[in-house]
Amino acid sequence: MAKELKDLTKRADNYSQWFNDLVVKADLAEQSAVRGCMVIKPYGYAIWEKMQQQLDKMFKETGAQNAYFPLLIPKSFLSREAEHVEGFAKECAVVTHYRLKASDNGVVVDPAAKLEEELIVRPTSETIIWNTYKNWIHSWRDLPLMCNQWCNVMRWEMRTRPFLRTSEFLWQEGHTAHATREEAEEEAQKMLKVYAKFAEEWMAVPVVQGVKSETERFAGALDTYTIEAMMQDGKALQSGTSHFLGQNFAKAFEVQYLNKENKPEYVWATSWGVSTRLIGALIMTHSDDNGLVLPPRLAPIQVVIIPIATKPEQMEQVNKEIQPVIDELRSKGITVKFDDADNKRPGFKFADYELKGVPVRLVIGARDLENGTIEVMRRDTLEKETRPFASIAQYVEQLLDDIQQNIFKKAKDYRDAHIFECDNYEEFKERVKDGGFFLCHWDGTAETEAQIKEETQATIRCVPFGVEQTPGVDMVSGKPSKARVIIARSY
Amino acid sequence: MAKELKDLTKRADNYSQWFNDLVVKADLAEQSAVRGCMVIKPYGYAIWEKMQQQLDKMFKETGAQNAYFPLLIPKSFLSREAEHVEGFAKECAVVTHYRLKASDNGVVVDPAAKLEEELIVRPTSETIIWNTYKNWIHSWRDLPLMCNQWCNVMRWEMRTRPFLRTSEFLWQEGHTAHATREEAEEEAQKMLKVYAKFAEEWMAVPVVQGVKSETERFAGALDTYTIEAMMQDGKALQSGTSHFLGQNFAKAFEVQYLNKENKPEYVWATSWGVSTRLIGALIMTHSDDNGLVLPPRLAPIQVVIIPIATKPEQMEQVNKEIQPVIDELRSKGITVKFDDADNKRPGFKFADYELKGVPVRLVIGARDLENGTIEVMRRDTLEKETRPFASIAQYVEQLLDDIQQNIFKKAKDYRDAHIFECDNYEEFKERVKDGGFFLCHWDGTAETEAQIKEETQATIRCVPFGVEQTPGVDMVSGKPSKARVIIARSY
Repeated sequence: MAKELKDLTKRADNYSQWFNDLVVKADLAEQSAVRGCMVIKPYGYAIWEKMQQQLDKMFKETGAQNAYFPLLIPKSFLSREAEHVEGFAKECAVVTHYRLKASDNGVVVDPAAKLEEELIVRPTSETIIWNTYKNWIHSWRDLPLMCNQWCNVMRWEMRTRPFLRTSEFLWQEGHTAHATREEAEEEAQKMLKVYAKFAEEWMAVPVVQGVKSETERFAGALDTYTIEAMMQDGKALQSGTSHFLGQNFAKAFEVQYLNKENKPEYVWATSWGVSTRLIGALIMTHSDDNGLVLPPRLAPIQVVIIPIATKPEQMEQVNKEIQPVIDELRSKGITVKFDDADNKRPGFKFADYELKGVPVRLVIGARDLENGTIEVMRRDTLEKETRPFASIAQYVEQLLDDIQQNIFKKAKDYRDAHIFECDNYEEFKERVKDGGFFLCHWDGTAETEAQIKEETQATIRCVPFGVEQTPGVDMVSGKPSKARVIIARSY
Repeated sequence: MAKELKDLTKRADNYSQWFNDLVVKADLAEQSAVRGCMVIKPYGYAIWEKMQQQLDKMFKETGAQNAYFPLLIPKSFLSREAEHVEGFAKECAVVTHYRLKASDNGVVVDPAAKLEEELIVRPTSETIIWNTYKNWIHSWRDLPLMCNQWCNVMRWEMRTRPFLRTSEFLWQEGHTAHATREEAEEEAQKMLKVYAKFAEEWMAVPVVQGVKSETERFAGALDTYTIEAMMQDGKALQSGTSHFLGQNFAKAFEVQYLNKENKPEYVWATSWGVSTRLIGALIMTHSDDNGLVLPPRLAPIQVVIIPIATKPEQMEQVNKEIQPVIDELRSKGITVKFDDADNKRPGFKFADYELKGVPVRLVIGARDLENGTIEVMRRDTLEKETRPFASIAQYVEQLLDDIQQNIFKKAKDYRDAHIFECDNYEEFKERVKDGGFFLCHWDGTAETEAQIKEETQATIRCVPFGVEQTPGVDMVSGKPSKARVIIARSY
């Protein structure tokens, strides 16, 4: 086994350390010299590109268009919506000067180049975008207006972890404007469904869709919808959110439109976003003690082919025979890496591609040529088998589909086996330590919510959609409850 | 004619104002509330996305991989390379604090949250990237290393213009590391050729390739290669640069590798970038007094189809007949917009799509149906013709190619007609006011270069490649000159 793998912590020993190790050893990302900011390495970035490509397509199918708004936001803009600034003030990176100058102590900030008004590195862009929409929206004919931007944002976090919580992260933020409340609510829910579809069909990550409690809402929203995924340690990871913003930002930035009766009305808004955090969800849902397990639909390399031969003439023969297979796989739109590098042993390559989560590995040697066979290994189960060489491309195409389905099923089975109804707070306190989603009755008060968080470090993840609800009794306060919510520890 | 067009300044009246008008009226971009930062609107951003898509493919074909490095750079990093910091110090946006707080005067910067070391919003990323490469490069086996990132950068500019010079802009920056000087020089020149190919074949913008004078070099480079395009007013627009950085950044960040003899050596570097400035080049090269003229290969909408009919049953018939044409065009990979909106008059639509630079317009009415014809207009020449309906998709496909070639030829003819050899400084001073590229002998000194700039506002754009050079006499100083350089006023 390659030496890189020796040091990969086992999940059972320390799940958190396993994740940190894996991010670095699989060449996904690393800490940078700037506190809390990561460098996304080419292999990690290639996953992000695949995610972007698919999401972008799905957004455009809903009618959204991409645009770009400024990185820096005047401090006064942020302050216009009271809850919004309260939510983000504590994590704002602030630009105060616009020039450096030489001095006896080396290069210093030029005190003469102080900005009149400080600028905030965007933590999210509702304010600058609604200040722009003011000029774009005049009549009902201008609505709906649906823009998305792919960009970087900055939230100064005290404790950071690669992909899960970083001071700078990459994301997309959609911002839409509508004529009616109903339309905006519908849009917010539609985009949640887009996220859920992407998570389940592309990332193979099953998610619970639901609505956040008031405490957990986005700062400035009337409702926040969420998709919550369960990691292998039973903790929740909020993986995407879609917000119904009501008329809050329209009022803060005076965005009115003339309706069909020619009367001015405030516009209704939504915003929605997913970030590089999705890569964290991907890693923690599927990967194992040997390394990454990537869903075929998002794997930068879907199939690796490794030729084995001791004599040069054998190698030449293998390379010649395998070429049509490579061509056939590529013609099916499958990404193939043919690794015939002679400065690494096969054993090293095997371990390395396992670590990197390449879904299918093909190995072909001189003996295989004689027998008309080829060795196939699937990364999700690590099962090896010998297949007829002649029909291998077709087999691999099907296998990639099978792996995609299989890892989704595996994750879903795990998730479903770790959702518990619980009506006893003492029992809850004990069991929540081991992870899992707990369906519990809640009286709807922020007090009870705060008590649970204080005493168990677990939070209300959402009121789940699609669950049959009957009234009951709050397990903490004993007060009446209308519905069960999902409570869990989370990242 | 639509009312928007009435206000579009004519090029002959005020070229600069024409450009500013066009950017806004064609819905490409607008000034934001943040000084010098623009909002790129969906139509403008769609052009950028097409550019990105093609460039990204071309970069990957050279072996470069995408990655992402932090937005914020510690001030001390910037200072490590002396020329680099000198070049960028005057335009740095500086983050000094990481929190806001509530006060009696509203939300203010929290003085307790002052950073120990100031962070600079990246004006370019050589320093943070070479600080990272230090950990990635150990042996000759790790080379070459070729990363690119698509991102935003910030250079605090005092005078800004949309696309041409903005405080924040979007770009890509490639950063490569090599074992030898030769390899790095070759990479820098190779990427210049990629940019030239993209400019000419995709943007239809002819460019002069060359090398910058020492004064005009990138801060920290040993050589800067450039592509220079000529706008319709005869001014130059630097459209892309590729830098041979020598070992400057490797030495500043202590990046050494063990060569095949196991001896440590400093790594050789390049960096190369193009930005949203390319959109400025695109607009100013091809567009006319009616609006944008976009090259078909980068146009967000390549063909617009407008049905005309007075009676609903005619409209229904037209829509039915045209559908197979739309399908056929789309199956050829052509982007088609079918505009049957009934709340705008055809005349308004015609003017609007002209303004937006849609390369081909098809108009079909009830009379055409009877005659088996369709009206075709090409945006570059504004020529209209009536074509047989039956073979229209094939005709349009060819026409798009023709337009692409024609606007390139037109731009090249203009450019070539405005390149002049000039050996007399008095004559130069007079003629340079009217624009054009002047091929002049230069003695190679910064003094002469400064004098020309001071007295004529023209600068040495480059020593052009591919021009037969014979020694001569500097037109200003009378000293010997090895070669002619291109001197021009520029954006």
